[in-house]
Amino acid sequence: MGRKMIKAVFFDLDDTIVDTTRLAEMARRNAIENMIRHGLPADFDTAYGELLDLISEYGSNFSRHFDYLLRRLELPYNPKWVSAGVIAYHNTKIAYLKSVRGARRTLLQLKKEGYILGIITDGNPVKQWEKILRLELDEYFDHVLISDELGVKKPHPRIFRKALQRADLKPEEAVMVGDRLYSDIYGAKRVGMTTVWFRYGKYADRELEYLDYADLTIERLEEIPRVLRGLEIEESEAGADKEVHSD
Amino acid sequence: MGRKMIKAVFFDLDDTIVDTTRLAEMARRNAIENMIRHGLPADFDTAYGELLDLISEYGSNFSRHFDYLLRRLELPYNPKWVSAGVIAYHNTKIAYLKSVRGARRTLLQLKKEGYILGIITDGNPVKQWEKILRLELDEYFDHVLISDELGVKKPHPRIFRKALQRADLKPEEAVMVGDRLYSDIYGAKRVGMTTVWFRYGKYADRELEYLDYADLTIERLEEIPRVLRGLEIEESEAGADKEVHSD
Repeated sequence: MGRKMIKAVFFDLDDTIVDTTRLAEMARRNAIENMIRHGLPADFDTAYGELLDLISEYGSNFSRHFDYLLRRLELPYNPKWVSAGVIAYHNTKIAYLKSVRGARRTLLQLKKEGYILGIITDGNPVKQWEKILRLELDEYFDHVLISDELGVKKPHPRIFRKALQRADLKPEEAVMVGDRLYSDIYGAKRVGMTTVWFRYGKYADRELEYLDYADLTIERLEEIPRVLRGLEIEESEAGADKEVHSD
Repeated sequence: MGRKMIKAVFFDLDDTIVDTTRLAEMARRNAIENMIRHGLPADFDTAYGELLDLISEYGSNFSRHFDYLLRRLELPYNPKWVSAGVIAYHNTKIAYLKSVRGARRTLLQLKKEGYILGIITDGNPVKQWEKILRLELDEYFDHVLISDELGVKKPHPRIFRKALQRADLKPEEAVMVGDRLYSDIYGAKRVGMTTVWFRYGKYADRELEYLDYADLTIERLEEIPRVLRGLEIEESEAGADKEVHSD
């Protein structure tokens, strides 16, 4: 039982590999500022508050945020203001897109140690690939699974099972790392994967009712290689124990 | 009749103020190259040819060019390839967006000479404003009219009449400058505006059957101030003639 147990590490994308929440907040703030600069007759806090409400009601992939913002502010439709919002939003998203601190170093280390690496994420597939390709992270990952492809969302077990199947792995050979206790941790644990909760970002402490599904908790991605070595030691000890008991 | 006759100059946007055709061609080429770089199994000429056909069939504002390109190449849907296309397309469009040579100098000169300036264009309003705002050209124009707002397209007379009405002008007080003989020149002439055909771009010599509607032809935007002075001299001479004849 000295054999290596964990063969693959799967990661959530947003707020685990890519620093999405911070980026989206910056992009939205800059959008409102640019709309006001081009004549939107509203104060920043009112307009920004309405935008956040709108996003929470319609979802972040709704394609008409700025049109609807004008409606909510009871202003006539004005393509100049919408355009000012869109430009600032996209400029910010492109200029400030960053990986989470330590992500690249950690991925490189895991690659060197021979792990299979993957992404398991929800979201619009083209937009998710856009983040991966813009950051040139695609070479690190052997498998990128986007739940949309199967018509499900995390924590649906089907996306985790598909990831294991594509990589030809048993659940106990794979680790899932993610910031969301419900979608990532509960989801992966249900199919039998080892779970590492990345306690990160301003929403880190939501969904704490699912904390029991986390085998391990980390605060920095750089902890992962050490944590995996710990799992393998535990595993071989557990194996040794089992052998003793089965005698 | 020494009084200034022409008070306003309206411009088409694409390939008159903004160098659109060249930009779109570059963006499309870079999109195909980046798709191939990320694994699209097609040769450049085949894929680029299909993309051009697709655009001519579905229009340049169709939002799913790259999805449909995969269908036309009989390839399975792949969000990574679509994303690679989208990224390169947008990067090119943002990085290489430029005004037509001489546009800014000409607009500045016309402003100094006291002309009212406007844009009369077709196209998606948010995308048209995006070009204007990204190039920071908005301060030059007193009126921006996008035909979409009225549910028509050039050469429909309604968009030209609306432009005149907004600026409180008679048709004979306004000049229309554009590269398209049918939409810009024939359209503006029908409502009584003076027309200046800007013979520019690789499609400059289409629609020559409408050439008679062009009062003047220019090859460089910098000719406009001189051309306008010529019109005013002609006008005052015609006026002087008329006075003589009406005696």
